[in-house]
Amino acid sequence: MKVVELSHGGGGAETQQLIQQLFYRHFANDVLLKSEDAAVLSLQGQTAFTTDSFTVSPLFFSGGNIGNLAIAGTLNDLSMMGAKPLYLSCAFIIEEGLPFDTLEKVVQSMADELQNSDAKIVCGDTKVVPRGAVDKLFINTSGIGEISTGQIVKPSAHNLQMGDAVIVSGDIGRHGAVVMAERESINLHGDFKSDCQVLWPAVKALLDAGLELHALRDATRGGLAALLNEWANSSEVCIEIEEEKIPVSESVRGLCELLGFEAYDFANEGTFAIALPCSQVEQALQVLSQFDFTQKAAVIGKVTDFQAGLVVLQTPWGSQRVLELPKGELLPRIC
Amino acid sequence: MKVVELSHGGGGAETQQLIQQLFYRHFANDVLLKSEDAAVLSLQGQTAFTTDSFTVSPLFFSGGNIGNLAIAGTLNDLSMMGAKPLYLSCAFIIEEGLPFDTLEKVVQSMADELQNSDAKIVCGDTKVVPRGAVDKLFINTSGIGEISTGQIVKPSAHNLQMGDAVIVSGDIGRHGAVVMAERESINLHGDFKSDCQVLWPAVKALLDAGLELHALRDATRGGLAALLNEWANSSEVCIEIEEEKIPVSESVRGLCELLGFEAYDFANEGTFAIALPCSQVEQALQVLSQFDFTQKAAVIGKVTDFQAGLVVLQTPWGSQRVLELPKGELLPRIC
Repeated sequence: MKVVELSHGGGGAETQQLIQQLFYRHFANDVLLKSEDAAVLSLQGQTAFTTDSFTVSPLFFSGGNIGNLAIAGTLNDLSMMGAKPLYLSCAFIIEEGLPFDTLEKVVQSMADELQNSDAKIVCGDTKVVPRGAVDKLFINTSGIGEISTGQIVKPSAHNLQMGDAVIVSGDIGRHGAVVMAERESINLHGDFKSDCQVLWPAVKALLDAGLELHALRDATRGGLAALLNEWANSSEVCIEIEEEKIPVSESVRGLCELLGFEAYDFANEGTFAIALPCSQVEQALQVLSQFDFTQKAAVIGKVTDFQAGLVVLQTPWGSQRVLELPKGELLPRIC
Repeated sequence: MKVVELSHGGGGAETQQLIQQLFYRHFANDVLLKSEDAAVLSLQGQTAFTTDSFTVSPLFFSGGNIGNLAIAGTLNDLSMMGAKPLYLSCAFIIEEGLPFDTLEKVVQSMADELQNSDAKIVCGDTKVVPRGAVDKLFINTSGIGEISTGQIVKPSAHNLQMGDAVIVSGDIGRHGAVVMAERESINLHGDFKSDCQVLWPAVKALLDAGLELHALRDATRGGLAALLNEWANSSEVCIEIEEEKIPVSESVRGLCELLGFEAYDFANEGTFAIALPCSQVEQALQVLSQFDFTQKAAVIGKVTDFQAGLVVLQTPWGSQRVLELPKGELLPRIC
């Protein structure tokens, strides 16, 4: 079995071979850095810039792997700023002995996921570290996106307005639940997959529809609970959520009951929330209905002045409780 | 002893604490991303974009640590494109149990190193992985720089011209030698430090002097040998080097003799090479004489048509040999 060796990260002949035969082959495009220290880009206007390292374990899970996750995650961070994803860097840290086939599968799925946007990988880095210095494979992707000058509002966590409706784009907690189930060797029936997904097409459609997206955020680490708390805190508003309106799949609900978790705390990798004026809810839901991955979009609550900085859950039984920012260990290596 | 815990990477309350109390405090600036998914930048004209992950072991070495190395390395990659470094992302992957003091020392030295340029950290990411999943601390920095529209020539590995002189900015091999000596517990006398250094001030002075910098490259992994071979190969020229003109410190020379290495293969982190017209050599050396870290700059050879694609060393004894692209394991975790 062919494996990645330390020499592939040494900066000499074998590194060049790996770059040319694997990375250049899968990531080929007209801007890709070749034999230079940096890629040269032409950018206009306001630019969004973000970074994310991916350490997910296991590398492969139902619905994806570390490769397409690393693409979707960074494209989504750009999209959530209303920025069209344009350019990505990608940096691999590989454990000596990783099967070459595993690396190629990951790289292939990165290339495939890139097809869901116009973004290109334009520069990269490869490090190989001795056995035991890293667990198999970590990937960092950083991204650059273009913020359209025509946008009515720049979505921001600081920009929620009194009376805004809060929409969630799909059922929550799937990515976290899938990774946890794989690690605990729990078999869940049915079509139980990570929600890992490039969200730009849906965001673009919302922007093109001229909607006033006051805030936009994908519910990654810390889940919907962290997202809503950050919004309430940054904008100094109260967010009141009707618990029964939050879409949660049967599988995720079952896993949560089994293990004593709440779906709100589970990470998502292709599910986002929107805050926008109440009057635009119908139009937003109509736009989201056009995409497979936002079919289950639903209004889950609204922005009020009840208790600034708090997220309040209205339970189906008429009681209220505070949805707190998750604390403690949660699930390590989820993304 | 306070240590980093898994909860610091969970995306919840402890993560926010770490970010606010450590990263925001040391990296404060007016563009820094706060509570958003991406930083928003205003860029003009041509932009350079690069990424690098740092996995150096040990974390601290004579003359630096993984933190200032991660800043200098990425700023230098931008500088080598003739781009003024402007914005950096920084992504930490931390092993559970890393002393908080260690992390703070690293972060402090990143902030200090940033003072050597106008660049700012504008976005970041923090992952904490369980014990054993990573060795202490890895850092990725990605960078964005502005390529001046006034530049006469864009430096490129593909742009070496027949008759060009090749200059090296200082004595070679120090970073690699220092890391190797620390790992092998070899004590080297005198002022034996990594050359880790932000190079932008010297590059800016060379650009401001209107010099035609055909190629510019820092001699990182793979050392001067990899750099010259990539140039000879990319530009399809021969590079003839006079071996005795290459500056090598006594300490590095001694270590190489002791362990059977060549200084050409050792990584540098603040030493670069320039190819430019012979007629501009005096002026270039005069510019470089203004900076402490380029005091030992020297002309080491020239571009010829002797054997396209080859680097040829002229030895002090009148013989010639081919300086090959380094092969094999070299030194893992050097940067």
